[in-house]
Amino acid sequence: MSEFTQIRLDKSDDGIATITLNRPEKMNAFTRVMGAEIIAAMDDIDADDAVRAVIFTGAGEKAFCAGADLTPEGGGHVFSDPEEVEDLSDERVRDGGGLVTLRLFESTKPLISACNGVAVGIGATMQLAMDIRLAATHARYGFVFARRGIVPEAASSWFLPRIVGISQALEWCYSGKVFDAEEARAGGLVRSLHAPEDLLDEARKLAREIAANTSAVSVAMTRAMMWRLMNTDHPMEAHRIDSRAIYRLSRGADAREGIASFLEKRNPVYPGKVSEDMPDFYPWWDTRGYE
Amino acid sequence: MSEFTQIRLDKSDDGIATITLNRPEKMNAFTRVMGAEIIAAMDDIDADDAVRAVIFTGAGEKAFCAGADLTPEGGGHVFSDPEEVEDLSDERVRDGGGLVTLRLFESTKPLISACNGVAVGIGATMQLAMDIRLAATHARYGFVFARRGIVPEAASSWFLPRIVGISQALEWCYSGKVFDAEEARAGGLVRSLHAPEDLLDEARKLAREIAANTSAVSVAMTRAMMWRLMNTDHPMEAHRIDSRAIYRLSRGADAREGIASFLEKRNPVYPGKVSEDMPDFYPWWDTRGYE
Amino acid sequence: MSEFTQIRLDKSDDGIATITLNRPEKMNAFTRVMGAEIIAAMDDIDADDAVRAVIFTGAGEKAFCAGADLTPEGGGHVFSDPEEVEDLSDERVRDGGGLVTLRLFESTKPLISACNGVAVGIGATMQLAMDIRLAATHARYGFVFARRGIVPEAASSWFLPRIVGISQALEWCYSGKVFDAEEARAGGLVRSLHAPEDLLDEARKLAREIAANTSAVSVAMTRAMMWRLMNTDHPMEAHRIDSRAIYRLSRGADAREGIASFLEKRNPVYPGKVSEDMPDFYPWWDTRGYE
Repeated sequence: MSEFTQIRLDKSDDGIATITLNRPEKMNAFTRVMGAEIIAAMDDIDADDAVRAVIFTGAGEKAFCAGADLTPEGGGHVFSDPEEVEDLSDERVRDGGGLVTLRLFESTKPLISACNGVAVGIGATMQLAMDIRLAATHARYGFVFARRGIVPEAASSWFLPRIVGISQALEWCYSGKVFDAEEARAGGLVRSLHAPEDLLDEARKLAREIAANTSAVSVAMTRAMMWRLMNTDHPMEAHRIDSRAIYRLSRGADAREGIASFLEKRNPVYPGKVSEDMPDFYPWWDTRGYE
Repeated sequence: MSEFTQIRLDKSDDGIATITLNRPEKMNAFTRVMGAEIIAAMDDIDADDAVRAVIFTGAGEKAFCAGADLTPEGGGHVFSDPEEVEDLSDERVRDGGGLVTLRLFESTKPLISACNGVAVGIGATMQLAMDIRLAATHARYGFVFARRGIVPEAASSWFLPRIVGISQALEWCYSGKVFDAEEARAGGLVRSLHAPEDLLDEARKLAREIAANTSAVSVAMTRAMMWRLMNTDHPMEAHRIDSRAIYRLSRGADAREGIASFLEKRNPVYPGKVSEDMPDFYPWWDTRGYE
Repeated sequence: MSEFTQIRLDKSDDGIATITLNRPEKMNAFTRVMGAEIIAAMDDIDADDAVRAVIFTGAGEKAFCAGADLTPEGGGHVFSDPEEVEDLSDERVRDGGGLVTLRLFESTKPLISACNGVAVGIGATMQLAMDIRLAATHARYGFVFARRGIVPEAASSWFLPRIVGISQALEWCYSGKVFDAEEARAGGLVRSLHAPEDLLDEARKLAREIAANTSAVSVAMTRAMMWRLMNTDHPMEAHRIDSRAIYRLSRGADAREGIASFLEKRNPVYPGKVSEDMPDFYPWWDTRGYE
């Protein structure tokens, strides 16, 4: 994994990948390079059947990610470019934070945030596309866009109200203030708070519970179904997909192992692989225009 | 009601129907027969204007419903069929749990769950299509599908994130663990916990408050509007429906009785019947393909 | 602002408009005139770049708004008209509460409710289209429609489940009961409770934090994006809009001021105006049929 320069990607023997934002001297500020490396790491992880869950954290003790790096080193951030251009076509204007969150949205593995410090701007919004958010007690969050003359990005107008409700989402984004971990927890942004020295252990405990007990194919299907089907107009959409999934998967090797290990009171060893054994109708959505 | 063999349907004088899953020796495990009987009971209830609210519970002290009965007695569950078939057309593959939750979705009466014990698999997901969930303090829940090599069913990828949020829904489904009533309450799955001996009384108190004070037509319209219109893109969809409903119903007999009883400070006696007096534009949705 | 007869519109030097429902002798009961005046006040406010946030409250100490005025003085309420008509076309039947909430939905300024007492019927539902709800400790709420033989109006079947979840929304609407401020807070309807004498000050503190620190264009864009994009099927919809917004706004004068004031550790003075400086692709939605 040595090709990465602004993140680290580590994989443990028990199936947990950890992506560490790794510019501690810059409070892990986000750059175009970092964004591209996160996407490349996700491609690696999704192709690796040994990985069962992913943890995101930041290097150092101060920051998860302090936002976009606005210096030239940050990759020629748009703020530094004074000229206006007329062309708003998709190819030219795609927000770098959104490229990351849309890639996370496509993940076939559970994504767990271990927010170890300051998380501002894209440092906060990138976590919205993760499934479960844990934080250190000293973490701080800020949806500071309105204090910078811009708007919430990374598709957070889709993600944030779903997670914390429209009123809390608006209050945090209207004020643009930085707030502490306890306010994040009370507002529903964060699942649980932990002492800094316990944070990664708690995230790994969650990840291991998934890895040790469940079918990788079941988890990948569950992730796609929940994030995509909750938004449809009518539960019939979900019924059409889950009926097919139950029909196929209940005849498969993982289901046999699930029942057998349950009846034999032993730990399961599921043979199914996400790379090969997803049901034939997956993906069931039109993937064009959504990458 | 003696035609039922795996449920009981009881109706009280004060307008409350109770559906009891009734295989206590099998922890009320779900079978095809039980699913068909629940649907038949709902058809009976929706056609009976005397019923104002429905309570669901399980027979015995241990279980609400311990999931799908995987034995041959359970009705030839798909797990026992090793052969793969290519045809995934709607007619062949419809998930039995989803047939139940889609039927509950169509209910014209409020649905209240009184979860008296273990609720696992379909025992948990069938409750998601109910409106209000109460539980005994010793109840336990499990969305255990990923531990069985299958996926959440009964359209729960539509229902569960709506009720508890996407992060909590994913955490419970990813781990597949069985969790206690307090975790269910804290996570938003359950409204309130009660001592086992008080559970049904509390559910009946809620049901009686509805039956004693409100118009049946108003409640049936409210149920259809809330579950269907919350999902639309823009509040204008809701405005179009509620404008027509206010226009029609405010000129009706129930509105006159509502105002009169309010001004006269007496209990109301609404003449309107769901079987006859729903407004002329109901149902306002295309019902084809959704049954 | 002296043209208003049933509301007051006050504007402070620090950019806060306050709309006071002003029929205290009638517990601020809603009439057609009041609805039209709220809409006119919102038109005034949206055209006034000096206004940065809006507070809604009621005159007197008892009520925010006790519901629709059912007397002839209330404006010929439909309840008093016994005749049935067949025509349900949009022009004839539009619910007066919905005209108000749809207008609030279009607001370019943050809307804060300071609920100073009883809020029943339209008094409760009109607040659902506001962004943040504060209440006095003695406030009471009631979605009483089913006790009057009608249905929730003002597009509340769209708003209410989004804010408090489908189960809580149904329970309050099924029972039609009046409930206290603490139940409203616990159920997610209200952000925070305050002593009556502190309520307006707390609302103003929230409003001032927005006015003092943020770009008006950023806030107007954030409001439109959150309320509209959270409902779309896929985060790509949000990404397409926020990419364009980041691209345009990050090259604008407010972004320069946001960065400069941040680096210079001084209070910002954003030049951007909602009346003139919204990005060229705003509004990005088809506005026909939604007014």
